[in-house]
Formats: sequence, C-alpha cells, structure tokens
Amino acid sequence: MVIVIQCKDSVGLVAAISTVLAKTGYNIVSMREHVDLEENKFFARIVVDSISDPQKIEISLAKVLPAYAVVKVNPVPEKKIVVFVTKEYHCLSDILTRNHFKTLGANVQCVIGNHPDLKNITERFNIPFRLVVSENKSREIFEAELMDVILPYEPDYLILAKFMRILSPEFITTFLLKIINIHHSFLPAFIGANPYRQAFNRGVKIIGATAHFVTNDLDEGPIITQKIIPVNHSLTLTDLIKAGRENETAALAKAMQLVFEDRVFVCNNKTVVFE
Amino acid sequence: MVIVIQCKDSVGLVAAISTVLAKTGYNIVSMREHVDLEENKFFARIVVDSISDPQKIEISLAKVLPAYAVVKVNPVPEKKIVVFVTKEYHCLSDILTRNHFKTLGANVQCVIGNHPDLKNITERFNIPFRLVVSENKSREIFEAELMDVILPYEPDYLILAKFMRILSPEFITTFLLKIINIHHSFLPAFIGANPYRQAFNRGVKIIGATAHFVTNDLDEGPIITQKIIPVNHSLTLTDLIKAGRENETAALAKAMQLVFEDRVFVCNNKTVVFE
Amino acid sequence: MVIVIQCKDSVGLVAAISTVLAKTGYNIVSMREHVDLEENKFFARIVVDSISDPQKIEISLAKVLPAYAVVKVNPVPEKKIVVFVTKEYHCLSDILTRNHFKTLGANVQCVIGNHPDLKNITERFNIPFRLVVSENKSREIFEAELMDVILPYEPDYLILAKFMRILSPEFITTFLLKIINIHHSFLPAFIGANPYRQAFNRGVKIIGATAHFVTNDLDEGPIITQKIIPVNHSLTLTDLIKAGRENETAALAKAMQLVFEDRVFVCNNKTVVFE
Amino acid sequence: MVIVIQCKDSVGLVAAISTVLAKTGYNIVSMREHVDLEENKFFARIVVDSISDPQKIEISLAKVLPAYAVVKVNPVPEKKIVVFVTKEYHCLSDILTRNHFKTLGANVQCVIGNHPDLKNITERFNIPFRLVVSENKSREIFEAELMDVILPYEPDYLILAKFMRILSPEFITTFLLKIINIHHSFLPAFIGANPYRQAFNRGVKIIGATAHFVTNDLDEGPIITQKIIPVNHSLTLTDLIKAGRENETAALAKAMQLVFEDRVFVCNNKTVVFE
Repeated sequence: MVIVIQCKDSVGLVAAISTVLAKTGYNIVSMREHVDLEENKFFARIVVDSISDPQKIEISLAKVLPAYAVVKVNPVPEKKIVVFVTKEYHCLSDILTRNHFKTLGANVQCVIGNHPDLKNITERFNIPFRLVVSENKSREIFEAELMDVILPYEPDYLILAKFMRILSPEFITTFLLKIINIHHSFLPAFIGANPYRQAFNRGVKIIGATAHFVTNDLDEGPIITQKIIPVNHSLTLTDLIKAGRENETAALAKAMQLVFEDRVFVCNNKTVVFE
Repeated sequence: MVIVIQCKDSVGLVAAISTVLAKTGYNIVSMREHVDLEENKFFARIVVDSISDPQKIEISLAKVLPAYAVVKVNPVPEKKIVVFVTKEYHCLSDILTRNHFKTLGANVQCVIGNHPDLKNITERFNIPFRLVVSENKSREIFEAELMDVILPYEPDYLILAKFMRILSPEFITTFLLKIINIHHSFLPAFIGANPYRQAFNRGVKIIGATAHFVTNDLDEGPIITQKIIPVNHSLTLTDLIKAGRENETAALAKAMQLVFEDRVFVCNNKTVVFE
Repeated sequence: MVIVIQCKDSVGLVAAISTVLAKTGYNIVSMREHVDLEENKFFARIVVDSISDPQKIEISLAKVLPAYAVVKVNPVPEKKIVVFVTKEYHCLSDILTRNHFKTLGANVQCVIGNHPDLKNITERFNIPFRLVVSENKSREIFEAELMDVILPYEPDYLILAKFMRILSPEFITTFLLKIINIHHSFLPAFIGANPYRQAFNRGVKIIGATAHFVTNDLDEGPIITQKIIPVNHSLTLTDLIKAGRENETAALAKAMQLVFEDRVFVCNNKTVVFE
Repeated sequence: MVIVIQCKDSVGLVAAISTVLAKTGYNIVSMREHVDLEENKFFARIVVDSISDPQKIEISLAKVLPAYAVVKVNPVPEKKIVVFVTKEYHCLSDILTRNHFKTLGANVQCVIGNHPDLKNITERFNIPFRLVVSENKSREIFEAELMDVILPYEPDYLILAKFMRILSPEFITTFLLKIINIHHSFLPAFIGANPYRQAFNRGVKIIGATAHFVTNDLDEGPIITQKIIPVNHSLTLTDLIKAGRENETAALAKAMQLVFEDRVFVCNNKTVVFE
C-alpha cells in the first residue's frame, strides 16, 4: 500500500511520519524521500506492507504535517481516465489493449475524438466513443461540450493521446495537473508544428518524445518522461514519423505507468519522479 | 553528508533512525530505503544537510538499531583503491585520468600489473606501478607478493581493471566485497574464456559488460551494473573486441561511481543499488 | 522497389548486377552489400526507383549470378503470416493492432492458439482464431492438425508470439527459416525455462529479449534482433516479467519489420541485417 | 581498403564504378550506397579486399564519374589532427589516451589551448601544447596566431574538444567541413550559452550531446552523431554537468571514429553516415 506526501520542508518530517506508521504497527518496505532545497519542499513516497484503515492513518499523518500538506494513503489504486484523440491510432490502441487486459493501472471510461476516425477501434474494445466535433464552433462551445461528456465520469486524469487541439487556460485550470499530453519531440527542441519535418530538415541523429502535464504555457508543462530513438539519413520523412510513433507510444505508456503508480510529484514546473 | 545503514528488518526502523537525526537537528534531504522481504533485511541511504559530529551520530544510531547492524555516518568520502591490471589499457587509462583530475571519487594508491605493459602509462600520471609477475611461481607465493604490495596502502577497494588472473578463495575472503571486477560479457551469458569470440560465433546483436563484486564463485559475484552496446554482422571479431572495450570502460566507471558514493549494498548474491 | 540477392561470392558480382540494372535504365537509390569472407557468401539488398517488369529483371539477374543464387525482385511486399499463441496477450495485441491499421507490413491470415484464452481479442479484430489443443495427443497428431490449419493460407512466415510448445524437427524443416520466435531472454543467457526467475535470482541489472529464426537447435537459431531494458533491485519477479513483456513486444515488432522489409539474410547460424 | 565517392547522381553509376573495380580484379567485400533524391546526389563507401595501386584506380574511377566528383581511394588512413581546448579536460584526455595507444584512428599533432590549464596533461603524453591566448587581442590577431600554429602541421581535421571561443567565418571557410565540434546539448534544444542550466531549469529527463561539423551558422552545422543519457530530479546542476561530460566525451569519440574511418559525407546541412 502506497502513501504519498507533499508539503513544506522542515527538520523532523521523516521522523514524524515514520513514527505515526511505526506506532500503528506498519512496516515501511520501501521509501523514497526528496527535498527540493531551492523550493523548500518535501516529497515522499512510502510503501508499507498493508494498511487496515487508510483513512485513519491519513488523519494521523495530517496532524503531524505542516499546513497545506498533501497526504494520500492508498490513493485510488485504479484511476479513472478519459482519453482524447484526433486521428492517429498508435497511442490509443496501446491504451485500449492494456485497459482490456487490465494492465494499464487505470480504467478507461470513455474516448473522446474531435474526428470520428477512431470510433471503430474504440468500440471493438467495448469502450464508449464520443465524437465532439471542433469545427465550425467557438472554443467555448467546443470545450463546454467536452465538459458535458467528461464530468459524469469524474476522471482522475485526462490523457491527450495525440489530440490535435489546443485547450483554453480555463479548461486546463479546471483539470490542473490532471492532463497528460504526449508531445512528438524531444522538448524543448522542435517546439510547435511539424516537429518531424523540423527534425528531418535539421538532420538530427536522434528523435524524441516527451510526456508532460499540460499547463497554460503550451509545450512548457512539467515533463514526466522522455524517450528517444536513433535515426539516420536513410529515413524519409514518412519513415521518421513512423519511427517516432513507436517512441511516442512508449513514452506515453511509461508516463501513465509512473503517474498511475503515484510516483510523480510536481514541483513548480518540474517533476520529482520516484521511479 | 551520507549515512548508510544495513541490518535485520523490523517495524519502526525508519522512525527510530529519523528520530535520532531529528533530535540532533539534522534535516534529511534525500532518503532511499528498501526492505528485502525474502531475506528480512533493511537497507537505507540517507543524505542530511550537514553533520558536525559524525562519530557521535553513529553511536546514537547504533543504539536504536538491531544487533549486527552496519551503520556508517559520513563513510570515507575519498576511498583509497589499488588497481590490478594485465595488458589492456582502456579501463586503467580512464581510472588514471579521473584520478588525476580528481573526479574519480577515490584515490589511486598504486597500480599492480602482472605484466609490465602498463607501467609507462601509470607513471605518466605519477602513480606508482608495481610489477608482480605471476609466472613460474605458485599462486600462494604470487598472492603473498600481492599482499605485501597492497597492505601498506590499506585500500578500501581493489579494482580488477582487466586483470587476467584468478584469485584464490583465501585472497578473496581477505577482501570480501571489496574487490570489483569488470567482466567482458553480459553475465551470465558467455561465462568463461573468450566471451567476444563466443558472442561473435553466436551472432548476437548486443554485447554487454558486467561490473561485479568478486566472490569465490567465479563470474558469479553480486552484479553492480551492466551496460550493453548494439553490434551487427559488419563487425569482425576485432571490431567486436574494440567496441566491447568502450563498453567495459563505461561499465566499470559507472560501478566505481556507485560504490564510491556509497550507493551499493550487498544482499546475499545480489545488490541493492540506490542510484 | 527492392531486390535481394544471396549467392556464392566472386569478383565482379556487383558489376554484373548493377550493369543489368543500368542497361534497363533503373537507378539504384540505396544499396547494401556484404561479403562473409569466412563463408565466401555474397549478400545484397538494392532499392531501385521503380521496376516495370520485375520478372524479366529477375531472369536477367539470374543469368549473371552463380548457380544456386537466390534473387528476388520486388519480393512479396505484403507477406502473409500465421500467428501462434498460447495465453500471453502482449505480442499478439501489438500484431493485431498493426495489422488492423495496415502498418505491420504483413497480413495476418489466422491466429492459432493451443489454449482458447486469446480467441476473444483476436476476433475483435475480425481475424479467424483456430484452437488447436495440444493436450492429450501425440506431437505428431498435434502438428498434423496445425498443418491442416496453416497450409491453406500459404503463409510466408509463422510468428511464434509467445507460443509455449516445442515444435518437432519435421515441422521446423517444413518451414525452414520461415518461423520467427520471441525468446524471453537475452540469449544465450538464461536458456530454457523460467528465464525471468533465473534473471531475478541472479540479480541482473538488465533484462533482454531475443527474436530469432527457429531451427532444430532449441533457442539456438539465427538471431534477428535483441532488445534490453534496465532493471533494479526494487522490481519483484512479477514486475520483472511485466517489464520484460514490453521488451519482448518491442523486439518481436522490430524483427518482423526487418524481415518483412527483406532486410534479413541468414548465413549459417547468424544473420546479416541491412538495417 | 576503402573507396569513397560523392558526386551528382545518374543512372548507371554503381555499374560504372563496380565495373572498373571488377576489371582490375578487386573484390567488393562491403558496399554502402545512398542517393539523396531531393538533392540528386550520390554517395558511396566501398571496401575492397586490397588495392595495389590506389592512385591508378582513382584515375580510372574519375574517368567514369560525372564532373566535380569526389573520389578517394584509400583515403589517408591515419588522419592528422590538431585539438583545440580551453579548460575542460574530459574530451582531451580521452583523445590523448587513444592517441597514445594508437586506437584513435588519427595522429594528434598538437594541442592548442587559449588557457594554459591543459598544458600539463597534454605534455604527459609527449604531445606539444601551444598556448594561444585570446584575451586582449582582436579576433583577427588571435586567429592569425592560431593559423601560424596550425598550418605547419597540415592537419586533416581540427577537433574542438570543448574550445570555448567562436571562430570567424573566414577561419571556418579555410577549414570547411574539417572542423568538428562537440556541443553540450541535444541540438537544436538549448542552443547558446549554459545549456545544462537551461536543461536543469526545464526539468528535462534526458540530456544530450551533439558532435557536428562547424559552419558559419553557429550550432547549425551538419550533425555527425548525437548521444543522450537519462537524468532525473535528484541531480543538481553540478551533477548534470558531470553526467553531461561523460556523454560529450562519448559523442565526440564516436564522431571522430566515424569521420576518421571515412564513413561521413556531407549533403548540404546534413550528413550521410554509413555506420
């Protein structure tokens, strides 16, 4: 069972936390703690053998922690997610397959597409697909429609699995640090449109993909994970895109695993990841 | 400042340890803890902001830990090492260079060769080279001569940097878990002689190197780190060996860094590495 | 358009081949040639801009090549494959998804399982699933039943996607160098049963997967590709297996891509891979 | 023996080249050919068993190639290089060591530093160190002094091994595509000053290094090779820089190997690398 804690740092926090656990008879089988000295922030992920009453422990821990501490004992073990897509299938297929075989670490509630292309594959896995067209309407109306679909599911995270629309600051704020995006480049290289074309033109020997939380600064949210693959002159632009998709799929899958296992903390615009 | 602890596991160990530190006013800026449930063993590496009296803390910690606990507060920050070589220069050169520029995390006291080939490069860096010939003498006598060279230096670790002699159980026991070897294969593949020839014949697409502690089971000691490089049909056996050497150098360098930073614990025949 | 050639080596082969192509007005846009000097064998993969009459070129090339040369001009661009499975879904799902979106480079004709577990996922993609139970019958009868299913499809390759049965020499000979297997280890390490348990017990820091052609020497066929992932002490055996599956999926996918793009040649028990 | 050819593309080039070789009785043991279709350029690297009269073959080949073709038969097997440094030792030490043991594939003629810091290590290897101070003088004068040192050596390549000065267009043009630089980032990310600080601030999970030819567009020359290493939140800026240096050393070493083995061709602002 996992305990995650995030709060202002001070001397004696580990002692206070571990004493609460020891008094209740819990054994810490694995612990990661990190203090960001510049920000004076404390992060911990603790695995204990088993906990009979998570809520009680949560209250006991809160008492010994500073104000505004975030403490979660046994955080939702199966997160609920909604997946946003446009036309590209690679990330979605991977998510649907893992979800189907219960190895995703989350439950896909619904897939939302602004194009109908991926309705077929989604429904093959008995997952509801909702088409929310973005064309010929204002962003306000589009996002209001998205919200109507999303809210009943009460999702823990929204996964942008190659969703090719920019979300408004209002929308993002509503789901702050709950939106995960896969960006088709090794950020901050090739920010913006057509990163594979940019990479091809530049003749790079490695291409990357970046999974990150979405914030109001486009392509600038906290990075969760990055992956790369080597490329060379023999790849055409089409080859590059194809190779890049494998990499995007792998990067997003890794990021989701880390987040769903409660290994990722956000510290300003960076992440602390207890891998 | 680093604190490392290894002992029998029991409920409340983290609380006991961190309470000692908190009472003395020390702040834990980074902590890694792991319990091997099968072996019921506890391992921790704690970084605190600074410690005025390491010895006092060590005694205080020992009091709250189980019998036979190993606790080191501020373990030797600059380890003393003796390097063993035969004829291949790649690992040694890397060690000598890092040692020269003080980025090795250890001080090379002396290089021992059973052949004179590497005397020249060693002495270029003002490090004493001692030739201890192994031919035409019994292993007992050879190892007695090695001991005569080694002991005055009181080394923390012996580094076998492509040392092509097998050491006796007696010798190894004298320096138990203090001898680090670089093995030119991805153990346990290609155990034994000529691993590159074996790899070449088998047509593998990846070759590896393994840095491990030396125990009495040849090639079977606890693995510290492993590295690989991709290879293909176009490499001759000579190319394979050349490529492998880069990899060996990198693997040994990484293992030394991990060990010298007190990140490696041994648990039976495996390691716990807090990277 | 691709031309692949494999034959006994002799001086002037490239000249002979390229002269045939030049006379017919074809431009070589990419060429890889390799001679195995020990075996005196010649391998080439040539990409030309376009070919109006592949069969004619094939005949022209055969005339200038030594006896027993293998020459294929525009080899089947979409291979037909039959996939063999037992219970594990990860490789199969990946194959079915790529097949569905036409990015596999091959057409899945049918999935054969010796257990019914993967019937559901297969049929979701409208691919026929054929259950051929292996229990309570001789291997002869089991393999005769397999043959009955396979032969009508005239497959180019059989893919063992975590198929947990050993095939007889007779069966393998029938499909010589047409059966691709994914082995859950970094061959030749951990040959045999339970490689992840073996890897766990040995405390390795890297685990691998090997895609290879199946020959009569179990786990000893020519290696097509190998992939690895780093692991550490914090992974349980279950974690190790889970991590390994991602790696197996990636290794098999890569091997299929290489084979289906006609980049892989077999030279005795090794492969020449023009990546 | 290696033959490299670069010229305008046309149908029949491979036939023309290989016919010249076949007529002279040479056997092609390995060949890589690539046509850049956008640029209509032809690149080939051919390995033949042995050549008795390189110059004669070169003339014969030139006769069958288009105007302005570059053809080199048995290009200088041991390149002469001059190494430029400032204060950081890691790349230089690696170069000096390989040079000393004759595994660099080139001969270091001289090391030029604009600071005296690396004089000591250079001279330990009996290589001349020339201090050319850049302070308190115009770039013209500084570069004139550099030229005075360089020219007598007639170097094939200049290696900027962490040389922290920007060279003028005039200087670069003099040694066009003969200057190799190691850039401490995954270009084009973090162009400009302090890339590690930029990477640290951005919280990236991977840092890179790029070896490239120097052209007049700063940080924009053709990329030869790129390497990366994973990093995480636990690394301070100092740790990041230290880790990055290992990566820079490896990337520059790889680039030099590729260039010195005549595997790198430049095609506009990109490279064709026959690895």
